[in-house]
Amino acid sequence: MVYLTRLEHFNAAHKLYNPNWSKEKNEEVFEGCANENWHGHNFDLYVTVKGEVNPETGFVMNLKDLSKIIREHVIKKVDHKNLNLDVDFMQGKMASAEVLIVEIWKILEKQLPQGVFMHALKLYETARSFVEYYGE
Amino acid sequence: MVYLTRLEHFNAAHKLYNPNWSKEKNEEVFEGCANENWHGHNFDLYVTVKGEVNPETGFVMNLKDLSKIIREHVIKKVDHKNLNLDVDFMQGKMASAEVLIVEIWKILEKQLPQGVFMHALKLYETARSFVEYYGE
Amino acid sequence: MVYLTRLEHFNAAHKLYNPNWSKEKNEEVFEGCANENWHGHNFDLYVTVKGEVNPETGFVMNLKDLSKIIREHVIKKVDHKNLNLDVDFMQGKMASAEVLIVEIWKILEKQLPQGVFMHALKLYETARSFVEYYGE
Amino acid sequence: MVYLTRLEHFNAAHKLYNPNWSKEKNEEVFEGCANENWHGHNFDLYVTVKGEVNPETGFVMNLKDLSKIIREHVIKKVDHKNLNLDVDFMQGKMASAEVLIVEIWKILEKQLPQGVFMHALKLYETARSFVEYYGE
Amino acid sequence: MVYLTRLEHFNAAHKLYNPNWSKEKNEEVFEGCANENWHGHNFDLYVTVKGEVNPETGFVMNLKDLSKIIREHVIKKVDHKNLNLDVDFMQGKMASAEVLIVEIWKILEKQLPQGVFMHALKLYETARSFVEYYGE
Amino acid sequence: MVYLTRLEHFNAAHKLYNPNWSKEKNEEVFEGCANENWHGHNFDLYVTVKGEVNPETGFVMNLKDLSKIIREHVIKKVDHKNLNLDVDFMQGKMASAEVLIVEIWKILEKQLPQGVFMHALKLYETARSFVEYYGE
Repeated sequence: MVYLTRLEHFNAAHKLYNPNWSKEKNEEVFEGCANENWHGHNFDLYVTVKGEVNPETGFVMNLKDLSKIIREHVIKKVDHKNLNLDVDFMQGKMASAEVLIVEIWKILEKQLPQGVFMHALKLYETARSFVEYYGE
Repeated sequence: MVYLTRLEHFNAAHKLYNPNWSKEKNEEVFEGCANENWHGHNFDLYVTVKGEVNPETGFVMNLKDLSKIIREHVIKKVDHKNLNLDVDFMQGKMASAEVLIVEIWKILEKQLPQGVFMHALKLYETARSFVEYYGE
Repeated sequence: MVYLTRLEHFNAAHKLYNPNWSKEKNEEVFEGCANENWHGHNFDLYVTVKGEVNPETGFVMNLKDLSKIIREHVIKKVDHKNLNLDVDFMQGKMASAEVLIVEIWKILEKQLPQGVFMHALKLYETARSFVEYYGE
Repeated sequence: MVYLTRLEHFNAAHKLYNPNWSKEKNEEVFEGCANENWHGHNFDLYVTVKGEVNPETGFVMNLKDLSKIIREHVIKKVDHKNLNLDVDFMQGKMASAEVLIVEIWKILEKQLPQGVFMHALKLYETARSFVEYYGE
Repeated sequence: MVYLTRLEHFNAAHKLYNPNWSKEKNEEVFEGCANENWHGHNFDLYVTVKGEVNPETGFVMNLKDLSKIIREHVIKKVDHKNLNLDVDFMQGKMASAEVLIVEIWKILEKQLPQGVFMHALKLYETARSFVEYYGE
Repeated sequence: MVYLTRLEHFNAAHKLYNPNWSKEKNEEVFEGCANENWHGHNFDLYVTVKGEVNPETGFVMNLKDLSKIIREHVIKKVDHKNLNLDVDFMQGKMASAEVLIVEIWKILEKQLPQGVFMHALKLYETARSFVEYYGE
């Protein structure tokens, strides 16, 4: 079993804002992240899959195919977008890295070829903070 | 003459949109960057000053002072903000990295202690693109 | 269960020196790291916690709180310090990255809010060498 | 149990080419990687070992010894080499990162001192793609 | 005058070998880089152009256009190629970073739009070595 | 004229302390950097030389020779050392990055082969602060 990871990027706007709370409570909890006019990040998404190595190709899976799956099913929905307003799978949810990574997992786990499995997602929001998810 | 550089970060939303143009022309020129609901970046700002080395301190200037100047006069105005909507010195201007770096220069060059001079600004919008300005 | 990581930095001096050994044996085993006048590093400390995502905040825990815990309980004790001489929790111990990471774990695991658990520590001593600890 | 990691580099040429396939099929599957005149990479190899911390040294093992093992048994065989033509342990195998990492594991696991065990290998082929192996 | 930089990557094989010299002299001068079976690198190419900021776009030039110029005129000729064998503009020349950067300059300086000028090229061969060229 | 840069590392302890000042004034000016028991850094030193490209080698100068010069004349004097106590060329001087870079320049400019000239030094003290020197 070998683990293969591909990094893809996206740049998006968001805010952390709970509509069930007052503006004051939002600012107290989320501070600058609650700015009503949004802020944004360069997100780095590492997708790790695992599988046996195919002796004919030497691959767990073709990296170009993995890249294509991530771009088509995730990146084109979030890149140069507003995570709160523009992204169908984030509607009605908090636009945090934690929530986003779980939703991205749900999308990607349906797209892998037979014999290849999701192992981990790692999502950098800044160079000093990131979240990871292993599907459970 | 020694050159001293400090890196500070900010996370901001923006869009590239010329209000004198049609939506179609904006999208043709700026593509995803014209998204009306904004997108955003982790900006990295390198500020380089130059001066003689003070033999008593070994410093061109105290790095903590340089950091404080950048934070008070620039970072707190742009961090977790919308560059188009929230930033006084960007009102009525295109919110591009090129325009932003020139405006930041104008602010910082007034704040340096005697005998220390602005040399360069370098502003990363993504890991693969940045602008530089030398004041002329 | 989502994993949340925060990076904090500290700059410290240390030496690797076993007081029960001769100077010669120390230099044989630790080479330059045994220099009696110390050397030092920029240490990078990654703290990873895990927990359920709170649907009201979208957070495992507030990243600002995690940062504050690390700074108050670890960074302010080691930053711009001598690990052998200045740090209470390192007294009488070898000032290696391995020993340091285990001691940092003991401190941090007592400081997390309910429902959030330590998962991993990762401590870079140089860009080419680091240690990890998972609490067991 | 603490985990200790050392990064070593090597620069090598390779191509991805299955000699049992036609040139057309190779180019269809491997695209540019099948270029008959080779291409190459700066490979980054992270070797992670685990063990108890020796209280006399503060070490899982001496990092200089770990570095020496990796350099003597792996790096000198692959650095500034052609992975398909020059490397004994890759003869007759696909020169992919997946195959290479498994072969490197087989070599390194025989070289560790008593009480120290291989935990993981991580091999970057580019800044955006890497493989990992845990020995099973 | 603002300076705009774009980073593009390519992965290539090469060797350093002067055909007018003996094999022994090549190995003495170029050591491992003279390996007759090639080695390779992940090259990072930073292209810096300069110009006035267009007030209608906020741009020195459109970054997407700069990227396209670099990819079409340079990257597609060198990526996943052998610099000695496959690249027309390197025929009969030493395949060093110094020679390569001067040849890339000659290509790119003919491709820029009016009012935009080449300022600098920076070419990383490894993370620890790079060359720069300013056209003179 | 092509510019060639080599990066070398060293890990050192130091403190910023002016012996002509009171302890209080030192702590007021240098804060944590004045800690009497030292602190330390992983320093990154970029050495940039310039020259014509030799058509026989394709080199400004052999990178291995440049590396050897830096290591023999600078790195072995500062690596795993105390900049205030152990380094001959820093005796009686403030151990700041600014002072250090000027002293390193004086050493290196005497060591280059004919036709190759020092262009710049860049010395990182942390990932967020560095100094540069051009010899004047």
